[in-house]
Amino acid sequence: MTPPLPTTIAGWLSAYRAGARPTELIPALAARLAEDDPAWILRCDAAYLTAQLDRLAALQREGRALPLAGVPFAVKDNIDVAGLPTTAACPAFAYTPERHATVVQRLLDAGAILIGKTNLDQFATGLVGTRSPYGAVPCPLDPQRVSGGSSSGSASVVARGLVAFALGTDTAGSGRVPAGFNHLVGLKPTPGRVGMHGVLPACRTLDVVSVFALDVPDAARVLAVMEGPDDGPVFQSAAQRPAWLGRLGRPLRVGVPADVSALDEALGYRVAWTGALARLTTLSPTAAGGAPAWAGEGIEIVPIDMAPFDAVARLLYDGPWVAERHSVVQDLMRTQPDAIDPTVRRVIARAAEFDATAAFEARYRLAELARATEAVWQGIDVLLVPTAPTHPTLAAVAAEPVLRNSELGRYTNFVNLLGLAALAVPAGETPAGLPFGVTWIAPGGSDAALAALGTCWQLAASPGTQPVGAHLPALTAADLQPATQPASAPTLALAVVG
Amino acid sequence: MTPPLPTTIAGWLSAYRAGARPTELIPALAARLAEDDPAWILRCDAAYLTAQLDRLAALQREGRALPLAGVPFAVKDNIDVAGLPTTAACPAFAYTPERHATVVQRLLDAGAILIGKTNLDQFATGLVGTRSPYGAVPCPLDPQRVSGGSSSGSASVVARGLVAFALGTDTAGSGRVPAGFNHLVGLKPTPGRVGMHGVLPACRTLDVVSVFALDVPDAARVLAVMEGPDDGPVFQSAAQRPAWLGRLGRPLRVGVPADVSALDEALGYRVAWTGALARLTTLSPTAAGGAPAWAGEGIEIVPIDMAPFDAVARLLYDGPWVAERHSVVQDLMRTQPDAIDPTVRRVIARAAEFDATAAFEARYRLAELARATEAVWQGIDVLLVPTAPTHPTLAAVAAEPVLRNSELGRYTNFVNLLGLAALAVPAGETPAGLPFGVTWIAPGGSDAALAALGTCWQLAASPGTQPVGAHLPALTAADLQPATQPASAPTLALAVVG
Repeated sequence: MTPPLPTTIAGWLSAYRAGARPTELIPALAARLAEDDPAWILRCDAAYLTAQLDRLAALQREGRALPLAGVPFAVKDNIDVAGLPTTAACPAFAYTPERHATVVQRLLDAGAILIGKTNLDQFATGLVGTRSPYGAVPCPLDPQRVSGGSSSGSASVVARGLVAFALGTDTAGSGRVPAGFNHLVGLKPTPGRVGMHGVLPACRTLDVVSVFALDVPDAARVLAVMEGPDDGPVFQSAAQRPAWLGRLGRPLRVGVPADVSALDEALGYRVAWTGALARLTTLSPTAAGGAPAWAGEGIEIVPIDMAPFDAVARLLYDGPWVAERHSVVQDLMRTQPDAIDPTVRRVIARAAEFDATAAFEARYRLAELARATEAVWQGIDVLLVPTAPTHPTLAAVAAEPVLRNSELGRYTNFVNLLGLAALAVPAGETPAGLPFGVTWIAPGGSDAALAALGTCWQLAASPGTQPVGAHLPALTAADLQPATQPASAPTLALAVVG
Repeated sequence: MTPPLPTTIAGWLSAYRAGARPTELIPALAARLAEDDPAWILRCDAAYLTAQLDRLAALQREGRALPLAGVPFAVKDNIDVAGLPTTAACPAFAYTPERHATVVQRLLDAGAILIGKTNLDQFATGLVGTRSPYGAVPCPLDPQRVSGGSSSGSASVVARGLVAFALGTDTAGSGRVPAGFNHLVGLKPTPGRVGMHGVLPACRTLDVVSVFALDVPDAARVLAVMEGPDDGPVFQSAAQRPAWLGRLGRPLRVGVPADVSALDEALGYRVAWTGALARLTTLSPTAAGGAPAWAGEGIEIVPIDMAPFDAVARLLYDGPWVAERHSVVQDLMRTQPDAIDPTVRRVIARAAEFDATAAFEARYRLAELARATEAVWQGIDVLLVPTAPTHPTLAAVAAEPVLRNSELGRYTNFVNLLGLAALAVPAGETPAGLPFGVTWIAPGGSDAALAALGTCWQLAASPGTQPVGAHLPALTAADLQPATQPASAPTLALAVVG
């Protein structure tokens, strides 16, 4: 039995401060990775790791500030890493970029160590994690069920403690649904907040890079390193908002769906949601002394009619944005259609149903619906929703791949179309022990406020821990992990289904 | 011979302060309007005028602030006025709205008196002013040449002093090209700055309501009344910028096209442009004491490569945005194609060439080009261009309606796609006495700064006049009109061709 490795970013940094060395821990971590783990598409080889460790040592000798020095991470395989193939889970599509994606470059420059590239629903088209020739990624906590997608592998490797954090991408929920299914934090920044150069688009006007981590401060720390524009095109932008929500002296107005009949009762999701609402009432803005997450005192729960958000979600699912996916793969669709996953191909082929007039008309409809949602925001400061309404089995998804997938986006599809920020957080378990997650959603630019609120949320689950701010370096691995945190658990279970 | 009526807003307000009454001047004005003037699609009848005058009197009795009390104006006939048909220059398309457009309501609430609705290139599709079953609108200053369009009638009635100001719309230059051809100010606000409810769309994601006036302070006064969002959808938005340009203590960096070989040399446009550049060097930011239009002292002319702007202009002309026009008229195209002007129909039919993928890909290309133009803006504070590169005759346009039209948008097409603000201003005459115009262009939100700069520009042409700010009420009609100002001139000439 080898000694346990850290799991959180805070844990890794603490281990290094206590004298451990990246040149020892990183090879030890790499040695533990299973060859047949479907979460990985590529594990960096010894030479690639050594080169990174050498560069890290050089940066440290220069005295550079390295907020992620020696912290292991993974990236979804639709994000470019120089010299490694980007497959997007489609070998026939693969190319090898010469330049890192902006986000990868920034993380490497902060001292983080890339461990590998992770599996995904092909071309980031799916919320299930099964649409890949590299294998379906099961949920580590219940291997009969899906990991969620499209950022399936990134969620899985963080959930199992194989890396401290991982990058996903999120267009319709790909950075949130897998967080919900894997008891993780999934931080989905405001679209436009993160430079997207070197990220293979799904829907270029909507995509954003997301972060999976075990706790909110870790995720916020990663965002702080990787955020900011690059020289690429910008399709949405929102000015940064304050790091707190609400109005001075007033309770935080938390909108919640008035009708949650979509939640899977048989799976215990309604019970779990009720539990989440109960936790909501225990939130304190100042926790045990950190910066307040909202300006007033107390919580006001505001049941809201989700109709305008639901309409936006349907617009994404039924509308012309699929043509953006088509734009990426059209050459391959024409020349090697069989190289594309049949379900993904079927989904993307629907692009042919939409002409340019339809594309513009959907944009008009979206703008109208956006105005309708603004009326909702007049009455709330933040929105809290279940991350997903159910958690299907691999078998159910295999039987009805499009329908089962479409059900999962109910609480995620609308977010990027409306330019909102979101933060998926663990919210306990269902009665049967399945992970349950909720997502905080706030107006674009509220990323810092959501991180503060999410930290309060996690502290409410573990009230005895140290008060923390989003970037305090003194965190240890144990500080903020929910009791049910599954890090490093099910390597064995995975081997059965991998 | 009846006594002359005022022409500018300042002139009308001054006349009322001197004792004239709307109930006298407005009927006198209406009585002078020719029945066969192709600039009008509808002249308000006596009952409609009387109702307005009655309401004005009621508002005045209430003591309301009425910044445009009794000032006559016209609106392009793609802007709704309750109870009057909106034709968009297509009788088969006409409908009668129950509600005023937002901009019309605001102007009426400020006391302005609507005189009539004006001719346009059908569906605001054209830059020539000839594509209308209500007749081609000739240039009042040279009736052999086009008025420019699509806001042809609005420009014509202001140029001839028939109203103090008129509303146009501007998607690709429809509020600027006619200003250039008619020796007018054409203020084209930042897209999104003006609520668009009740304006029939051309390209909904790009359209903005524009103002024609005889001088910049008048145009700015109208914008101040009509600006601000309404409850309609928003496709572009820019935060308001300061009312001055440039950096403290530095010269104003004015970008000008390095290559103006596109200007019609035979028509004297290059000579006229050289004259405009000469006037540029005489600009003073503080004129004779008003608020400074730029933060520093002096002017630095920066020749720039227009390539990225030209590429954006071509993208509008050759790209899928025509599908937005198709969205408006598709029912009529299908049921009564012959009801549509043949050239307009031919232009809009090109929408069928574009599928949704092409629509999104053009948006990607635009976003890339927008980044490229940002590099240009790093080196300049404002851009000065000719308003149009040539001024075709009616005969030339009739011979080659699409080609001649397309040439006119070179310096206007790119502006709304990039979310910029623009202000077309008179810039003297060509050697043959044709009007010549230039357009100031600045980043979105710079509307107030452009108004200040445009006022300096007009003062530089008439240096002996009173210093003015954009909203000073003490202006008189003579204050700011360039020497060649054509107000009230060619009623006779028009009758020949109308």
